[in-house]
Amino acid sequence: MQDATRKEALKRLSYIEGHLAGVRRMIEEDTYCVDVLKQTYAVRRAIEKMEALMLDGHLHTCVVEGVRDGRDEQVIGELLELYELANK
Amino acid sequence: MQDATRKEALKRLSYIEGHLAGVRRMIEEDTYCVDVLKQTYAVRRAIEKMEALMLDGHLHTCVVEGVRDGRDEQVIGELLELYELANK
Amino acid sequence: MQDATRKEALKRLSYIEGHLAGVRRMIEEDTYCVDVLKQTYAVRRAIEKMEALMLDGHLHTCVVEGVRDGRDEQVIGELLELYELANK
Amino acid sequence: MQDATRKEALKRLSYIEGHLAGVRRMIEEDTYCVDVLKQTYAVRRAIEKMEALMLDGHLHTCVVEGVRDGRDEQVIGELLELYELANK
Repeated sequence: MQDATRKEALKRLSYIEGHLAGVRRMIEEDTYCVDVLKQTYAVRRAIEKMEALMLDGHLHTCVVEGVRDGRDEQVIGELLELYELANK
Repeated sequence: MQDATRKEALKRLSYIEGHLAGVRRMIEEDTYCVDVLKQTYAVRRAIEKMEALMLDGHLHTCVVEGVRDGRDEQVIGELLELYELANK
Repeated sequence: MQDATRKEALKRLSYIEGHLAGVRRMIEEDTYCVDVLKQTYAVRRAIEKMEALMLDGHLHTCVVEGVRDGRDEQVIGELLELYELANK
Repeated sequence: MQDATRKEALKRLSYIEGHLAGVRRMIEEDTYCVDVLKQTYAVRRAIEKMEALMLDGHLHTCVVEGVRDGRDEQVIGELLELYELANK
């Protein structure tokens, strides 16, 4: 991962960890389920945005280099595996 | 939330927090993006399972009680709002 | 399904069928994959909206009646099954 | 799209069209909503599989060629756009 991407990913991860700590408090304090669920959905959306950031970096670096080095099958196979996992 | 549901939800949340801490280490140690992404997908799946557990409890308690008390519009409106949020 | 819901669902279905016919033409005419995929995503979104409409109707009728008639377990079990299927 | 991919995509599309025609009949004959929804979910899954097939072909042909021809920014930008659309 490039430095800028890693830094930004860690920043987002900190936000996600804080958000999850808030979810924990809500459950411990017996907050209404519906309100807890709205927050866990928001956490998942934040994780998806962090993933998009890492995928962006991955495509621009490893995938481009992989294709140029003749390792198409490997880098494209990995992308398809990720795609399948993401949709499972 | 009923006691058993809250207890189980908190247990799963602990697992999710541990999993995310693992993701943090992976990013800090510059693990291959593809491997990090596989783990963040797994974290999202674990959150979805925790949500299913809470939704199950919610339907069996608050929704049933709400309908019996004549608050259909409220509890069903909330379910539809959650459904829409989950699919956004 | 109530008359208004069925009518609206069929109207949306006609739109979806027309959209899919457009996707067929695009594939037959060898349109650029990326453009075809954007259309199939739009088709899936349209199906999701039709589903939200039917779910709305289902919650306001069958689910409320089921709970009032003491068939909570059945109607709630079905909702959870749908939820799981939708997320698979 | 390569011939084999297009042929397979059209075959799957025919199956999807038939499946949707079944959904239409179910709605017209006033089938229980829950059963209709299970079928529309299956239709969406079938569309996703057709998309995976087309994406596979796209990555192995247009993306690899694009990177080799120095059009990285274009082909990768398109992939990220698709990724964002698919998750919206």
